Amino acid sequence: MKLKVKNVDVMASSPAVGMDPADCAEIGVKENDRVRVSNGKAEMSVLLLTSDAFVNVGEVLVPNSVAKRLKVKDGDEVDVVFSPSPESVRSIRKKMDGEVLTDKEIQGVVNDIYLGSLSNIEVSSWLTALYINGMNIDEIAAFARAMVDTGDVIPFDRSPVFDFHSMGGVPGNKITPIVVSIVAAAGLMLPKTSSRAISSACGTSDFVETFCGIEVTAEKLKEIGETVGGAFVWGGSMNIAPVDDIVIKIEHPLGINPRAQMLASILSKKLAIGANYLLVDIPTGSGTKVPTIEVARAYARDFMDLGEKLGIHIECAITYADQPVGSAIGPNLEARECIRILEGNEHPASVIEKACECAGIILEMGGFQNGTEKARELLRSGAAHRKFMEIVVAQGGSPDLKADDLKPGKFTADVVSSKSGYVHSINNKDIVSIAKALGAPNDKGAGMLLLKKKGQRVEAGDVLFQLFADNEAKLARAKELADRYQPVAIEGMLIKRVTAPQPR
Amino acid sequence: MKLKVKNVDVMASSPAVGMDPADCAEIGVKENDRVRVSNGKAEMSVLLLTSDAFVNVGEVLVPNSVAKRLKVKDGDEVDVVFSPSPESVRSIRKKMDGEVLTDKEIQGVVNDIYLGSLSNIEVSSWLTALYINGMNIDEIAAFARAMVDTGDVIPFDRSPVFDFHSMGGVPGNKITPIVVSIVAAAGLMLPKTSSRAISSACGTSDFVETFCGIEVTAEKLKEIGETVGGAFVWGGSMNIAPVDDIVIKIEHPLGINPRAQMLASILSKKLAIGANYLLVDIPTGSGTKVPTIEVARAYARDFMDLGEKLGIHIECAITYADQPVGSAIGPNLEARECIRILEGNEHPASVIEKACECAGIILEMGGFQNGTEKARELLRSGAAHRKFMEIVVAQGGSPDLKADDLKPGKFTADVVSSKSGYVHSINNKDIVSIAKALGAPNDKGAGMLLLKKKGQRVEAGDVLFQLFADNEAKLARAKELADRYQPVAIEGMLIKRVTAPQPR
Repeated sequence: MKLKVKNVDVMASSPAVGMDPADCAEIGVKENDRVRVSNGKAEMSVLLLTSDAFVNVGEVLVPNSVAKRLKVKDGDEVDVVFSPSPESVRSIRKKMDGEVLTDKEIQGVVNDIYLGSLSNIEVSSWLTALYINGMNIDEIAAFARAMVDTGDVIPFDRSPVFDFHSMGGVPGNKITPIVVSIVAAAGLMLPKTSSRAISSACGTSDFVETFCGIEVTAEKLKEIGETVGGAFVWGGSMNIAPVDDIVIKIEHPLGINPRAQMLASILSKKLAIGANYLLVDIPTGSGTKVPTIEVARAYARDFMDLGEKLGIHIECAITYADQPVGSAIGPNLEARECIRILEGNEHPASVIEKACECAGIILEMGGFQNGTEKARELLRSGAAHRKFMEIVVAQGGSPDLKADDLKPGKFTADVVSSKSGYVHSINNKDIVSIAKALGAPNDKGAGMLLLKKKGQRVEAGDVLFQLFADNEAKLARAKELADRYQPVAIEGMLIKRVTAPQPR
Repeated sequence: MKLKVKNVDVMASSPAVGMDPADCAEIGVKENDRVRVSNGKAEMSVLLLTSDAFVNVGEVLVPNSVAKRLKVKDGDEVDVVFSPSPESVRSIRKKMDGEVLTDKEIQGVVNDIYLGSLSNIEVSSWLTALYINGMNIDEIAAFARAMVDTGDVIPFDRSPVFDFHSMGGVPGNKITPIVVSIVAAAGLMLPKTSSRAISSACGTSDFVETFCGIEVTAEKLKEIGETVGGAFVWGGSMNIAPVDDIVIKIEHPLGINPRAQMLASILSKKLAIGANYLLVDIPTGSGTKVPTIEVARAYARDFMDLGEKLGIHIECAITYADQPVGSAIGPNLEARECIRILEGNEHPASVIEKACECAGIILEMGGFQNGTEKARELLRSGAAHRKFMEIVVAQGGSPDLKADDLKPGKFTADVVSSKSGYVHSINNKDIVSIAKALGAPNDKGAGMLLLKKKGQRVEAGDVLFQLFADNEAKLARAKELADRYQPVAIEGMLIKRVTAPQPR
């Protein structure tokens, strides 16, 4: 049917046009159907919304994004007809029915998500079906490959390519720049792409950007990797596995991250840089993504099976994550703690130990003996720090960077213990909520310093942790939360007295 | 954070506002999060979209629908803060995890869908989880009650209230006005609310509106029911179980109709009119919603169990639906065939038989003996036709209505058989597609007449079916489809010759 374009300046989460219900009935289409819009030269299949308030009979409401792609303007005539749903909707239904999908069906879904041919409704259904019915290892491998195929790949001329990935979920995990610097100092290439926080208080990219640039092109990453041997850039600045960004927006309100989606998304990024060796850090502990050792083992098995299918040698490190890693949480604070260690500071020992154990495994994959010892040596000798500074400079940071250049926020408060005893537990989720209330990861000075960790003796009146914020309102809000949550639990040696029930 | 309202005239499928990513980061929110927008007097939690193209830092894009509810206008200052997801998102996740929901959790989901507090993403996930994990009978009963609670109920002063429901899915099923007229002629009250076609070629309301009004208020339905004893109105004209309309829009692109949703939605409409007795017609045959007798029996069991929980006496009729019911498909054509039968025409016998069997069961629920015989008598004597005319007039139709007032479309074509044999099958789905291509249900003259039904002898050159359309382009399109689909299959008596494989 011929309709007149009414161009509008609106945001649309997926490409859509609007029509009057009478015109919809005329061509037999309904809300959330698709229509094919063409102007003789270009055509496009888009989602249909209906309204009798914003569009007249004979008109079609076309948002800018669609108008640009079709090269139409206000008043132009276009032809609008029913367009069947993309084939991939059948594959989604197949997954709802618990069936195994073929490589081609998985490629179809991924490709249609990438092109915006599937609406939020359909992507949500896909993720829900994945969450409930899952995927087998072959499907996940095909899924990872399909995600690579919709984005850019970086063909390094130097090989092998080493990579490192932490599943995250534990606050304060600032080891990535240390691991990268140690491994590169040993002469291996580890061109690491990281992410920003999704639901956490501070992703690797969120604190690295406090001391150097993180946005690079694929060409630049290739150059830094090949010449300097290491990098810690933001994966989002390149077009690597771009489907992930679309999917995250839909997962977020549902609060789910289906195993198949998570594994495929991690591995697609490793495939895109052509990784030959990969170490996966699986932080395990209550309040993280991986609550128990059993779950961690299952993930490790999945990763190794997938590595075999995808031609990547994968090893996994199940790491302790029942409390935050180290003392600092928040961008500047984590950056400072991380760089201080590279500068030779011996505290916090737990961060140094985790970084050296992880780097050690990678060094051993690369042919070194006694990897952990080698890693400690490279850190102690200053070689890792020199390599770190090379990378910082390559990423546009200052050659004079010092840890103490990074300052926490001006507005601070101490949270003290009301009783004496031992630190019995530190709640990861509460720590994340408080750090976010302080303004992390957006406010660079926002964050917390934990002065007492699990098992330590505390006297009433001791400072348990300090809060830092860039503005007073956020500090006040975070103080409230800290009071409410009491994230650091103090108990006497007797945790709970269990008595027999009273006789009635 | 304080932002300036930028009011826009756009359609939004759910209440949403738009913000610049920088402002989002400042208050720690992401796309598809919710924000609470308040102007000191009113406040509202809405979905957040982000864009750096359509909204500036310091501004919030507010669509008309939200602006009206908040009573804000362009340039007003509002306060925008993060708002947690509604509690019902947890219930959706619980259903994803395969758990049984409590009455309260189900009410929460239904209520939030009704209020628009759940986005399309969340409703889609809910429906997918329902499709995969299902609900037990107690959950479905609670679901039906919750759907009633979000809409209007009609408290009839006359009792008992009889009701009839056909699960649909078979084309040409025009029996409802006949059943209602027979039952009401016997002195029982059957105030029937019907729907329009969702995916079919012609719903009951689509053909009833060709000869009388179908939009009434709840008060008017009560009055017609209590005085005339019967009605066949459009349920969508009242605010009965309004959640259904929202859900249908999300189910449509996914091509699913989860059993729990379907059962709850049917029963909520019966609860809303206070039905005491209900007959459910379950058309069973290939190409319908219920392909086999086993599936039909399972539905019948569900309906009867639900009836017990909800205090409705429910009986079910499993009816033959391997081919369309009667000869006519499409609004005017179905109306004509239906009224002709009421006027005394004895053809098509299958329509008369189905209508009288169904009416008979209802009459027996109402205390009559030999219900089917009684129904045939009321039809034969003209009592059903007189009652039909009373209802038509009460719904604003003409007292002089005759079946032949209803004319098929002017543009017609005959589809002839290319060979001799017997009608082996008629494909319901293809018939629906062709009728929709002709313009049904929106073009009232569009439709088809089947001249040959299953088992009938056909000679090469005989007309198998006729096509009718209100315009030539649609006729041409439908002819193409008819050629491609060959919906009426002709075979010799030997359907397939099975030979032994040739020796190699």
